Amino acid sequence: MDEKLPTRDRILETSAGLFRRQGAAATGLKEIVRESQAPWGSLYHHFPDGKEQLVAESLLRTGERYAELMRRAMADADPPSAGVLRYFNAAADNLARSGFADGCPVGTVALEAANTSERIRGVCADAFSTWERVIADALTAAGIPRSRATDLATQFLFALEGALILSRAQRNEAILRRAGEVVAAAVDAELSRRPSRPRRPPPQTRQAT
Amino acid sequence: MDEKLPTRDRILETSAGLFRRQGAAATGLKEIVRESQAPWGSLYHHFPDGKEQLVAESLLRTGERYAELMRRAMADADPPSAGVLRYFNAAADNLARSGFADGCPVGTVALEAANTSERIRGVCADAFSTWERVIADALTAAGIPRSRATDLATQFLFALEGALILSRAQRNEAILRRAGEVVAAAVDAELSRRPSRPRRPPPQTRQAT
Repeated sequence: MDEKLPTRDRILETSAGLFRRQGAAATGLKEIVRESQAPWGSLYHHFPDGKEQLVAESLLRTGERYAELMRRAMADADPPSAGVLRYFNAAADNLARSGFADGCPVGTVALEAANTSERIRGVCADAFSTWERVIADALTAAGIPRSRATDLATQFLFALEGALILSRAQRNEAILRRAGEVVAAAVDAELSRRPSRPRRPPPQTRQAT
Repeated sequence: MDEKLPTRDRILETSAGLFRRQGAAATGLKEIVRESQAPWGSLYHHFPDGKEQLVAESLLRTGERYAELMRRAMADADPPSAGVLRYFNAAADNLARSGFADGCPVGTVALEAANTSERIRGVCADAFSTWERVIADALTAAGIPRSRATDLATQFLFALEGALILSRAQRNEAILRRAGEVVAAAVDAELSRRPSRPRRPPPQTRQAT
């Protein structure tokens, strides 16, 4: 943890890291304060509504960060399926590098809180919607009509979140890479059904799935 | 909760229900004892290793039950994609009926415990492997070679688990139904590449992806 970060940022960053590894329910405020090297009082100063506020704000920030990572992975990807593969393979690399510890904080907390905190559920739902829009925008820019692009973006997300569960439980990041290939093939198949556009050569053929 | 069940079964059933709604970390032993109407002492009598044992045994039993549900959904499904749709649509119906509360206990706890309990992680990994084998067996019986059947079974699982996260967060079971269609289409596409077998007529055509 970068000690030069303002206390509030340190607390939010530390929290996101812990939620990614073990979820929010198992993460106590004491653990957050200790790991972020924040004074105890600062927790209630910055998050007067307590843990629910802290979880919500941490996930809000994480959601924006992942949206930016997705935007970057898809930027200039040509064909767009290359951006899909880039994102899933980077996620697989990160997961393996962390010893299968660092999953998706939004996915874990969404399952924990979907039924117990409307505030946190809402932040998770918004994060998923933002990610879906980022992917759909990139696919639309590549020539896929909006409704098909949104459907493919939904496939991107459920494949990513589901493969993260399986990869972590089975300690095997190959599932995440395979999920990326499946989504990339669906994107390629969609584009191959359309007339080629200027400056977007037809995508490479991949094995259909 | 059926009061005629033996205490041990009542405790395991109640636990699975709570884990499905809120994960294991947020579920205290007191809540389990209260909801299962079990005497406090019976918890340590039946689960001397404490909460970790209780979670592991509860998920083991749940994993077997879902394996049986998958077996039934796929049994006699012709084409096999009809079994895929049957399972996903039943999951979507159950989710909506429960007010988006009842997800998959294995998925939620797998994310919580993947990095904190090797025992629980192992039970989750085994459950996923069993489910994968059940689906792959059904697809193999329908004429799909084993390696492709296993790959499609993996797609079934990551689509199911990922769509459960999105559907619960967004309170919209349509994502789960759509995930079922995507997997069903992949199964149909695989079968349409093969010569038709006796007593298995060629599957209906569905929109690819």
